[in-house]
Amino acid sequence: MIKKYVMTPGPTPISEEVLLEHARPLMHHRTPEFSKIFIETGEKLKKLFKTENDLFILTSSGTGGMEAAVTNSFCKGDKVLVVSIGYFGERFKKMSQEFDLDVISLDYEWGDAANPDDIKKALDENPDIKGVMIQFSETSTGAINDIQTIGNIVKNYPAILIVDAISGLVASDLRTDEWGLDIVIGGSQKGLSAPTGIAFISVSKKAWSLIEKSDLPKFYFDLTRAREASLRTPPQTPWTPGISIIVALNKALDLLFEEGLEKAFERHRVLALATQRAVEKLGLELLVKDEKKRGFSTTAVVVPEGIDGKALTKIMRQKYGVVLAGGQGKLQGKIFRIGHLGYVGMFDVITAISALEMALKEVGYKFEVGAGITEAEKVFIENNYLS
Amino acid sequence: MIKKYVMTPGPTPISEEVLLEHARPLMHHRTPEFSKIFIETGEKLKKLFKTENDLFILTSSGTGGMEAAVTNSFCKGDKVLVVSIGYFGERFKKMSQEFDLDVISLDYEWGDAANPDDIKKALDENPDIKGVMIQFSETSTGAINDIQTIGNIVKNYPAILIVDAISGLVASDLRTDEWGLDIVIGGSQKGLSAPTGIAFISVSKKAWSLIEKSDLPKFYFDLTRAREASLRTPPQTPWTPGISIIVALNKALDLLFEEGLEKAFERHRVLALATQRAVEKLGLELLVKDEKKRGFSTTAVVVPEGIDGKALTKIMRQKYGVVLAGGQGKLQGKIFRIGHLGYVGMFDVITAISALEMALKEVGYKFEVGAGITEAEKVFIENNYLS
Repeated sequence: MIKKYVMTPGPTPISEEVLLEHARPLMHHRTPEFSKIFIETGEKLKKLFKTENDLFILTSSGTGGMEAAVTNSFCKGDKVLVVSIGYFGERFKKMSQEFDLDVISLDYEWGDAANPDDIKKALDENPDIKGVMIQFSETSTGAINDIQTIGNIVKNYPAILIVDAISGLVASDLRTDEWGLDIVIGGSQKGLSAPTGIAFISVSKKAWSLIEKSDLPKFYFDLTRAREASLRTPPQTPWTPGISIIVALNKALDLLFEEGLEKAFERHRVLALATQRAVEKLGLELLVKDEKKRGFSTTAVVVPEGIDGKALTKIMRQKYGVVLAGGQGKLQGKIFRIGHLGYVGMFDVITAISALEMALKEVGYKFEVGAGITEAEKVFIENNYLS
Repeated sequence: MIKKYVMTPGPTPISEEVLLEHARPLMHHRTPEFSKIFIETGEKLKKLFKTENDLFILTSSGTGGMEAAVTNSFCKGDKVLVVSIGYFGERFKKMSQEFDLDVISLDYEWGDAANPDDIKKALDENPDIKGVMIQFSETSTGAINDIQTIGNIVKNYPAILIVDAISGLVASDLRTDEWGLDIVIGGSQKGLSAPTGIAFISVSKKAWSLIEKSDLPKFYFDLTRAREASLRTPPQTPWTPGISIIVALNKALDLLFEEGLEKAFERHRVLALATQRAVEKLGLELLVKDEKKRGFSTTAVVVPEGIDGKALTKIMRQKYGVVLAGGQGKLQGKIFRIGHLGYVGMFDVITAISALEMALKEVGYKFEVGAGITEAEKVFIENNYLS
């Protein structure tokens, strides 16, 4: 009997309550019964986004939400600024190039975060930039961008700001309207701990003014069609939605608001801190050097010299049931990532660190057994047990 | 206490066994545990499609699968023939126009099916047609196209044949390889009775030769990326898939093969026949006049003169718990549709017809009470109770 613990940056563990909702008998998506849930889910997502903007629910992974942002906002040949601090920044670039946009890229070391001044400089030098794309939390490195400052810069330019908040939402506060974020993308399977397969996207008035002019081809992810469907009585989606995921998501949102947003942010801050302190106590190096640039959803750990990272995570998965994520893109084999996002509590972190210690021991890494879990426990005690 | 019966052409009822699989604790999509299910699901879908072609699982509604077919197969300005016998034929047209294809359309009355000779004629007159798009079962009317004959025609031309089999699969036999179908699209929520949110698409060698030249922009639905991911060890999807839907789908496929494909086709034939005979016995008119053109997934019934179709289906839903579908596009308000697709047995048809009789009585329609259910029961008896 090996109990399983999924500690990745997404999909994240799903609570029993949400799983039971997920398994409710089929509701047809054109019935009042589902409409009620659909409307509620949209309203709760807006509350999470802290926005009065339009918000649409798409049946796709988060990447589909990113594609919706790109293909709806621009015209062929439009100049866009893609700020890349990792693998998902690169995805925005590839996607923009595929749809014939003129991409200026602002690249940082993977593990670093963007400098808002660089964005201001790029906007000053290129007044024809139509949009800025950036990650809130970069899932591949665990770094977080200062979206508040960036939002306050971009709102003074004609460009719109597109924020991939897929793995950042719920882990850290995001204030769509206050910070002037034109398009924000989220996903069901990250901080909300609902099943995979739903993305959501908020759209500001400033973004709509571009969308109305956009000439890039789109159909499935066409936000104008989504808006049309949302204005019907009752509101609908243009295509059959992922019904059971939305039903589960609605429950997951209830659980989040029962906890309270502020408490959820604080929980993620402390879970991240405990994980990061514990890992450092074991003598391991964190990918994100600057503590202020570390997000609260994921901790990326550099695989130590002489250790096979793949073997390490395989031992953790096969012998101890703890699933971590490896590195993506050029970080493959060089890091592993511990997710502490969503339906995760103190003892999940203690478990993950304990399994990590056992696996490190097995691969011959030198450290003081128990040092990591002791450090994590101390962080929880110092922070009043997350409460 | 009102028991609920969803009798629409999709989503279709989900069995308890599939719902329980759907609610399994989260599996991460990069674990061997999920990989096994993912590979099995693909193999079982190929068996259902009767194909050795590549088959990809997409996280989207069926419309996403249609978009994948269009955007991957063609180049800007390519001439395509869209055969339209209803609402979903029109969707292929809109989509093709959105992606700058040169659309020739072959339109039939809604309720009719395509004449294969017309397709041959169009191909002869336009030797530069790159692809033919058509529905197997047209969900909006319940009519079925003779895909076998059409496949045998198109395979002699350079054009590829794209078949939307979303609501036709499982209800009727479809032989992808034997009939020469280059791209076939299916969905999780129709004949397979799994949750909404997954589409699948098979791709022939002939289709690949076009896909490799295609210059239409695509990212989320890029089949070349899907192929690349599928060739990794273990096979993967390029983006996070709808994990819990695939897990449910795998179980739904097991149930289908336990029943046996031939038996499932026969079951749908008899369910359709019983529904259609019962409706006619009540003096109602079927939208598809020609019995040979009636598919086995859905029965479209013309709303009788003087009766409010919306009021009728609302009574059925609110008072009797039986959910039917209305008309789509230009058939809105003019027909209602009874789905008898997927996890549906004899007594679901008896129930639907019984609720229909009760509602017809209530809105003042004149008929002999019990005539419909009696006729349905007779059909089941004559056909040896589906066995």
